[in-house]
Amino acid sequence: MAAATILSCRYLLICSATLALLLLRLCSGLSLDTVREFLTREEDTVVFGLIERAKYPRNTPAYDPAGYLAGGGHGHDASFAEMFVRESEAVQAKAGRYQSLQEIPFFPFRVPFTLAPPYNFTTELYSAAALVNVNDAIWSMYFNELLPLLAKNGDDGNYAATVSSDLVCLQALSRRINYGRYVAEVKFIGDQQNYTTLIRNKDTDALMKLLTSEAQEDVVKRRVQKKAMVFGQNVTLDGPVETGNSNSSQTSFKVDPSLVYKLYDKWVIPLTKQVEVEYLLHRLD
Amino acid sequence: MAAATILSCRYLLICSATLALLLLRLCSGLSLDTVREFLTREEDTVVFGLIERAKYPRNTPAYDPAGYLAGGGHGHDASFAEMFVRESEAVQAKAGRYQSLQEIPFFPFRVPFTLAPPYNFTTELYSAAALVNVNDAIWSMYFNELLPLLAKNGDDGNYAATVSSDLVCLQALSRRINYGRYVAEVKFIGDQQNYTTLIRNKDTDALMKLLTSEAQEDVVKRRVQKKAMVFGQNVTLDGPVETGNSNSSQTSFKVDPSLVYKLYDKWVIPLTKQVEVEYLLHRLD
Repeated sequence: MAAATILSCRYLLICSATLALLLLRLCSGLSLDTVREFLTREEDTVVFGLIERAKYPRNTPAYDPAGYLAGGGHGHDASFAEMFVRESEAVQAKAGRYQSLQEIPFFPFRVPFTLAPPYNFTTELYSAAALVNVNDAIWSMYFNELLPLLAKNGDDGNYAATVSSDLVCLQALSRRINYGRYVAEVKFIGDQQNYTTLIRNKDTDALMKLLTSEAQEDVVKRRVQKKAMVFGQNVTLDGPVETGNSNSSQTSFKVDPSLVYKLYDKWVIPLTKQVEVEYLLHRLD
Repeated sequence: MAAATILSCRYLLICSATLALLLLRLCSGLSLDTVREFLTREEDTVVFGLIERAKYPRNTPAYDPAGYLAGGGHGHDASFAEMFVRESEAVQAKAGRYQSLQEIPFFPFRVPFTLAPPYNFTTELYSAAALVNVNDAIWSMYFNELLPLLAKNGDDGNYAATVSSDLVCLQALSRRINYGRYVAEVKFIGDQQNYTTLIRNKDTDALMKLLTSEAQEDVVKRRVQKKAMVFGQNVTLDGPVETGNSNSSQTSFKVDPSLVYKLYDKWVIPLTKQVEVEYLLHRLD
């Protein structure tokens, strides 16, 4: 009798836990479909951003670490680009941009109030892991690896407009890559038993393996390459339109489509998975 | 003999004036081709901007004139969007964005110095007419006419990200429309005699007629509509690609292509011509 009561209590507990998680999932609207939809839409934003940055030449004086020395190197020599991002993010922080957990600043500010109209954001992430991010790695990758391959040599003096387009790219990449937290949350909810064991064992290799789908990654890489072809072509009224489907394209593109493939292959996807693993490692804290 | 000397002096004067203008044109690199190339490239920027703004819902609290009352309505109630544009432009002004005459702020600032690395911009415009602009009309058109047609109803609370994408649109439209100054300069240099007579007579109707090419405007409007189709489609890896050439498209677009046609037809082209006429009226000051 006692054993039967314990068993039915256990059963009830499991049922209510499952129900609670299901409700949480329904309320937050987070599912593998909505997460994939978000990431697919962000690809367009990333590609548009790269095309817009490529409009300007390299403009190296904007990135010289000794270029901006006047009044506040924050303990080190800051480039004009860094100064611009810091000041722009301060305005955006005041305007409440980072109230949404989807947005994470590169230079965190402590802003006690916001000028934005009030809004109650729903919390879809597990709070102890919600702020996991790889913005430092994104910053370094963007300026040291991607930009030299993206922008043509030259200097047209439009430094503010140039770094303004850098900021748009950085924000898009940060939002896309750090969205790994949401991906991880959905995957965790969908396969709690397996993930819980691996998290408890801190088995990062197995976690990485469990959340990797090479077939899906291949689709993403080839799709962003195609987007770079479709969005980065010169559209004329009567000329043919590059569809990105043929292998022997003669069109010239504003951004090299193979660079966008490489961006996702070498940085965006691996960094996203790094975010996913780090999020999961804090998912039971 | 005296008459012959006067005639040859006159001839020499005309020759050297023409030569000087030709040199000015060569140095500045401004020609009908470069101007058209710039405007065609800006179309992509405008379409990308609109697609990115359409990612967010209407988010009306950001535009309520009484929404932002705290600490500084500048003599009137300012919306959150206006406050955000003002503060962002202040950072950009400090960063030297408006040292280039291609960029004109919506809220002019007196910034005595810039944090940007130094650069000597060439002057391609006639100085007395260089600051002609229609930013007030662009501002009003964007928020009152375009935005209600562009953004879907709804409120997701991402006000800072939303008005950030508004600012990108406003800057692109302002750069595109106020580029009418460069268009007018090129047209003036190419047909000085006719323009000078009309400018002296302040004959705005005849000026408008002289600088209008309906065939060219038609090409531009249909091309931006096509760009909205090509850039605003949902690109999938294996699905067909919308080329914007067929009349019976079944594809759904992120921004209605006919709205982009309308934007150019009703506002961008007429406002650009207004800038051209106003520039010309000051061209002999």
